Amino acid sequence: MDLPYTRIKGGICAAREFLGSAISCGIKDPKSNRLDLSLIYSKRECLSVGMFTQNRVKAAPVRVSQSHLRAESLRAIITNSGNANACTGPTGMQDAKNMAKETSKLLELRQREVGVCSTGVIGLPMPMIRIEPKYEDLVAGLGPKNGNDVARSIITSDTHEKEFAISFELHGKRVRIGGCAKGAGMINPNMATMLCFVTTDANIGKRSLKEAIENSVDNTFNRITIDGDTSTNDSVIILANGAAENKTIRRGTKECRDFSHALEFVMNKLAKAIVRDGERVTKFVTLEVKSARNTSDAKKVAQAVANSFLVKSSWNGEDPNWGRIIHAVGYSGASIREEFVDIYYESKVACKGGLQAKTNPEILRNIVSKPAFKITIDLGVGDANHRIYASDLSPEYIDFNRSEYAYWKQAKKDGLV
Amino acid sequence: MDLPYTRIKGGICAAREFLGSAISCGIKDPKSNRLDLSLIYSKRECLSVGMFTQNRVKAAPVRVSQSHLRAESLRAIITNSGNANACTGPTGMQDAKNMAKETSKLLELRQREVGVCSTGVIGLPMPMIRIEPKYEDLVAGLGPKNGNDVARSIITSDTHEKEFAISFELHGKRVRIGGCAKGAGMINPNMATMLCFVTTDANIGKRSLKEAIENSVDNTFNRITIDGDTSTNDSVIILANGAAENKTIRRGTKECRDFSHALEFVMNKLAKAIVRDGERVTKFVTLEVKSARNTSDAKKVAQAVANSFLVKSSWNGEDPNWGRIIHAVGYSGASIREEFVDIYYESKVACKGGLQAKTNPEILRNIVSKPAFKITIDLGVGDANHRIYASDLSPEYIDFNRSEYAYWKQAKKDGLV
Repeated sequence: MDLPYTRIKGGICAAREFLGSAISCGIKDPKSNRLDLSLIYSKRECLSVGMFTQNRVKAAPVRVSQSHLRAESLRAIITNSGNANACTGPTGMQDAKNMAKETSKLLELRQREVGVCSTGVIGLPMPMIRIEPKYEDLVAGLGPKNGNDVARSIITSDTHEKEFAISFELHGKRVRIGGCAKGAGMINPNMATMLCFVTTDANIGKRSLKEAIENSVDNTFNRITIDGDTSTNDSVIILANGAAENKTIRRGTKECRDFSHALEFVMNKLAKAIVRDGERVTKFVTLEVKSARNTSDAKKVAQAVANSFLVKSSWNGEDPNWGRIIHAVGYSGASIREEFVDIYYESKVACKGGLQAKTNPEILRNIVSKPAFKITIDLGVGDANHRIYASDLSPEYIDFNRSEYAYWKQAKKDGLV
Repeated sequence: MDLPYTRIKGGICAAREFLGSAISCGIKDPKSNRLDLSLIYSKRECLSVGMFTQNRVKAAPVRVSQSHLRAESLRAIITNSGNANACTGPTGMQDAKNMAKETSKLLELRQREVGVCSTGVIGLPMPMIRIEPKYEDLVAGLGPKNGNDVARSIITSDTHEKEFAISFELHGKRVRIGGCAKGAGMINPNMATMLCFVTTDANIGKRSLKEAIENSVDNTFNRITIDGDTSTNDSVIILANGAAENKTIRRGTKECRDFSHALEFVMNKLAKAIVRDGERVTKFVTLEVKSARNTSDAKKVAQAVANSFLVKSSWNGEDPNWGRIIHAVGYSGASIREEFVDIYYESKVACKGGLQAKTNPEILRNIVSKPAFKITIDLGVGDANHRIYASDLSPEYIDFNRSEYAYWKQAKKDGLV
């Protein structure tokens, strides 16, 4: 890469003095040994910042983590996959609190230093009976080489784990940032949620860290879409423990900008990996909206196009169908003039001034036949731009998401419903 | 039916002194004889009102019909299927105008008394070479028994034609209202790739007619959704020729309300038929949102739920998955309180106060296994309601919509691109 970063191994354990642990407790599948309970822990005190779903229906662990983040700085995060602990009422709240409490006892932390995340089916009570006997094993398993185990334990129907880490120079010290993520809830309705955990050993001020994560999320996770659904559990949490012993990063400095860019670089890798591994996704589409009247309009157009069933179907069908794209532009709510709209597949113009361009459709078809391509929509009415990353929609996606009924049967067997 | 209407035959020719004609000119498929060019004509002068797509990208025929409706009252409508004449620039405008002009000459009408509609592929030039030689045949074919031919000629991916007509007593006279519609894809409130023509022999004032159609569209075509896409070509046009010779219907009278209800009754039949015949649709879902803080919120919730990929996938999978429904409620943008939300499948409660209710899931599963069912979402925060009609989303829908590339190949063969 031409950026001043060195890619390193270790995921969430890449940064100094962070430990991880992941075990199987049978929530995902009582009969298999799939990892589904994990712990991230910093040996030193941490600064922490979290960003959570905008959905008004928030899972219990989201509420608990938000409250803990307001009061203290987290040093640990316990996460289960297989059950979202969403729409579970006061019992679900108690379950999430207990997960933090029991973990904090074993780690000798205050309860509020432990964050909680869950991902999985919505509306089913948490199978606490499977989790409770496992806290000790989980804590006992903490180690500096378990980043990949944690990355694997949080995935649900993702086809593979997603982790990425880098190191770079800051104030003459080597600073590390590493993270892992799991499939966007949108992709993965069976187990709705996007989770992302990032650890860094940078020594950084709280406001700088907050600004950096907000900018980075805005430029990465807020720019991906698979099916337009916003889950009840989306969480991005960063922990910074200062073990790199660099001079504290302060707002407005070059070091602060450098850190922010590095964080965005890591999150961008994870966000794109989520789209690429979207449920039954076959196409990765970079959608660039240019020359909108304002940023809000550029976003509206990008969202409308990226979430149109018909546009997504045509991507799946490798059809360079600019007609469907302009029709979504038209209903996006943005201020547009049809006769100014140009649409490009990579550098080839498909629609010029709202009309079919002269480019041979075979050339366009070759472009959309590739697994990844870029579409540029130039609205020609201003100078605001917005880029998002999107996927196609496949018949297999629908097939995959037709029913979660099996989970209810299992829950009944478990005496939970 | 317990309403004071008699169902009659004839579709758009059911009302007195309306004629229809439909022929094949090879736009849909040069090799078949599928009807794809039609004409509706009133032997008497008419009042007419039209409502058109909210998409900012409007097809040429929409612009032409809007302009003609502003200036005069239509007496005829020429419609082709197979090509939308959208995104076709000045040439497309000229083509649409020519369709009106040539028809008007043969009918001895002013050009502005002829409306034009098109439905089909977006972005391809109109194959006028196929239409031009056929105007005389089209006009010569006008007859009082061709309502069904017209209904069949306007459909595209619909599996069957949709027509409906009634008669009823008004001011001691028998009044008739009949219509036909097409739908199938790009169906969303605000009228999608949806055409609907209604004729009536009622004698009615212009403002009464306008009010009646606006109310009716709002309660029918604006409440259906298949895939959330709003097309470039949606048009609803009503012609009223007064041949029933009833006393003129005036605003605010009982007769005006009776007429309006009758019109809504006809449009409701057509709108529901569109959802039932949506592309590869297997479920017809009546979605009732109750007790919202205001109507805008009720609509937001209905739209978010009805257009969620995940909710639609679960309907297709016959999964009574209230978790996905409440998650869409949560991101709808409406003001809700999770703990007040109740969700019912028919009369059976699935979610009570945001939590899994006691109803046996097998009972709910039996309900969603039926081809049509009702879901009620009670938000419990106000007294505003909204009802819409929606469909599932099937793997076959995606398959069906993967590619229109064959049309481009044909257009190339025709020398149009």
